[in-house]
Amino acid sequence: MDINERNYKKALKRYDLLCLFYHEPLPANKGLQKRFQMTELVLELTAQVLENKDIGFGMVDSQKDVKVAKKLGLEEVGSLYVFKDDRVIEFDGELSADTLVEFLLDVLEDPVEMINNAMEVRAFERMEEDIRLIGYFKGEDSYFKAFQEASERFQPYIKFFATFDKSVAKHLSLKMNEVNFYEPFMEEPAIVPGRPLSEIDIVEYVTQHRRATLRKLRAENMFETWEDDMDGIHIVAFAEEEDPDGYEFLEILKDVARDNTNNPELSIVWIDPDDFPLLTTYWEKTFKLDLFRPQIGVVNVTDADSVWLDMSNDEDLPTAEELEDWIEDVLSGRVNTEDDDESADEPENPDSYITEDSDEIHDLDEGDNDDNYN
Amino acid sequence: MDINERNYKKALKRYDLLCLFYHEPLPANKGLQKRFQMTELVLELTAQVLENKDIGFGMVDSQKDVKVAKKLGLEEVGSLYVFKDDRVIEFDGELSADTLVEFLLDVLEDPVEMINNAMEVRAFERMEEDIRLIGYFKGEDSYFKAFQEASERFQPYIKFFATFDKSVAKHLSLKMNEVNFYEPFMEEPAIVPGRPLSEIDIVEYVTQHRRATLRKLRAENMFETWEDDMDGIHIVAFAEEEDPDGYEFLEILKDVARDNTNNPELSIVWIDPDDFPLLTTYWEKTFKLDLFRPQIGVVNVTDADSVWLDMSNDEDLPTAEELEDWIEDVLSGRVNTEDDDESADEPENPDSYITEDSDEIHDLDEGDNDDNYN
Repeated sequence: MDINERNYKKALKRYDLLCLFYHEPLPANKGLQKRFQMTELVLELTAQVLENKDIGFGMVDSQKDVKVAKKLGLEEVGSLYVFKDDRVIEFDGELSADTLVEFLLDVLEDPVEMINNAMEVRAFERMEEDIRLIGYFKGEDSYFKAFQEASERFQPYIKFFATFDKSVAKHLSLKMNEVNFYEPFMEEPAIVPGRPLSEIDIVEYVTQHRRATLRKLRAENMFETWEDDMDGIHIVAFAEEEDPDGYEFLEILKDVARDNTNNPELSIVWIDPDDFPLLTTYWEKTFKLDLFRPQIGVVNVTDADSVWLDMSNDEDLPTAEELEDWIEDVLSGRVNTEDDDESADEPENPDSYITEDSDEIHDLDEGDNDDNYN
Repeated sequence: MDINERNYKKALKRYDLLCLFYHEPLPANKGLQKRFQMTELVLELTAQVLENKDIGFGMVDSQKDVKVAKKLGLEEVGSLYVFKDDRVIEFDGELSADTLVEFLLDVLEDPVEMINNAMEVRAFERMEEDIRLIGYFKGEDSYFKAFQEASERFQPYIKFFATFDKSVAKHLSLKMNEVNFYEPFMEEPAIVPGRPLSEIDIVEYVTQHRRATLRKLRAENMFETWEDDMDGIHIVAFAEEEDPDGYEFLEILKDVARDNTNNPELSIVWIDPDDFPLLTTYWEKTFKLDLFRPQIGVVNVTDADSVWLDMSNDEDLPTAEELEDWIEDVLSGRVNTEDDDESADEPENPDSYITEDSDEIHDLDEGDNDDNYN
């Protein structure tokens, strides 16, 4: 569907969800044209898969449809906007049919999921990778309403649960009208201050606390996560949860995150290579790493320059203490992406050998990595 | 790469892995041509992603290259064969770049993964979804060799682990040269009989026991699983593990599977809709189901006709006993896919209303499902 000034209001009313891809005019360049066609293909496939749901799909041209874009509040060219009731949700994830279909199905669901019994509590407690909120309310007509309104602002990125059941609340140590906030990978939740809570109280608390100490990269919001860097860098950990080594490393990482949950300077992005099979070898190449094994490093988001902790000995994963020392070194700037720069590091920038400090000899650890890699 | 009689031996020698897609001659039909091009695109993308691994990709035409196909032992047109050392591994999964890349990376890894410490044991114990074997051996030069040889026959579909560490073995109650077999979702492993075990002992045991009482459908071998039906039917359970309802239902299902693990007549295919976003709505349409909620039913593999257990009341998931009763009814034939046939059930076959028993009134449960669905 081509959205224009005449039909956009009707389209908004007609569907449960309306998905609009906000794009630049069709480029003259052949390579970019191909890219554009790939995007169209993804949208077509998604629309086809979801044809029996009540979802409309449309394209908004940033040049031809400038007025409509303004009225709808579309800002970022290349983004996909989803309209549900009177809300707009920006999709900032990997533009593949899988990811988009899953995202849209999540948006179709109710924003608050009810927890009714002990088994569902167990399921809730197992979701340690997600940011979750859970509140205990009297029933539908109660402060639950404010909670529900707040949940809509974060759907589907942050999960909201509620219970009207006394024994569930007791198990979770929830008082009436209380809301708990679970940071990913933490053992204990935080209590959102105030009781009862207004929609704004909840929205403000979540907005302030949503950047977790350890957060898992997900296809559905990978760009949003990546853009939310800390002073131009990310601490990135690669670990395959299904692999014994990766699992072990991840447990160490969780310990470190738990010890440092109150440090607002620290946010580690955990990437499970299994979730991104198409990107894994690209990362191996860019960062000169062997991703069959766990890795942790600092990545400069502007030039993709990086340094990685040496863990070349299989038997010798770092302890939580060693990892904390290294992270301290990163946060204090003692470990950084500039110190070891040399031309071999940065194929993207052949000038770096000259423009940056070049007085170092070839780093032996990196030499090792190269050997593993080839 | 186009594989022919002149170059196939060289290609086999040159790469760590050689992937050959065995295909019919390019069809005249436009629709089939597009499908063929999609497959080529997937292979190209996979090759591009894996370009820095030592993997060759080639096409074998079932008509032009009939001699090569015969020499290489290619049998199923439309299948992808992977050659590693002197082994051939057939890929019988979803032909998408994600799935294929992950599969090939798994094949590149060592077929036996070592478990060296307590943390790795925990990781091993968490993998309840997979068929796993673990053996305790003296070291590399021991009966471990036979175990390793056996593992190569099943890579990457069945996971093999080993330990040379006494305390790990003790924790897993493994005696020297003993091998344990873990059926998915079971609490206790079985001991593979005999000690020490030859390669053939292990291969035979695994072949005989690989069809689990409860098995999870995976993209990497979905066709193989689907073809391995029981007398023309599958008992299929849909449950989203990340969803509280789905999790609860899955726990009940696991209880049933544990109680019936010795019944060779029973094998339930569990599908997590989250793993197959592109197929979910297709299944909803074909089976007339709401897959936001857990479902269990019987599917006839030839005509996709199906009957589903009524679980329309949210509060009322069946108990393990009720589920066992229903499964008994399925296995005895009291519940089957023919009894409720009527035209509305089978859009693929408009004649069924006439040709099959049509003396039933419209089933009310199915009416309910339709309402939820639209």
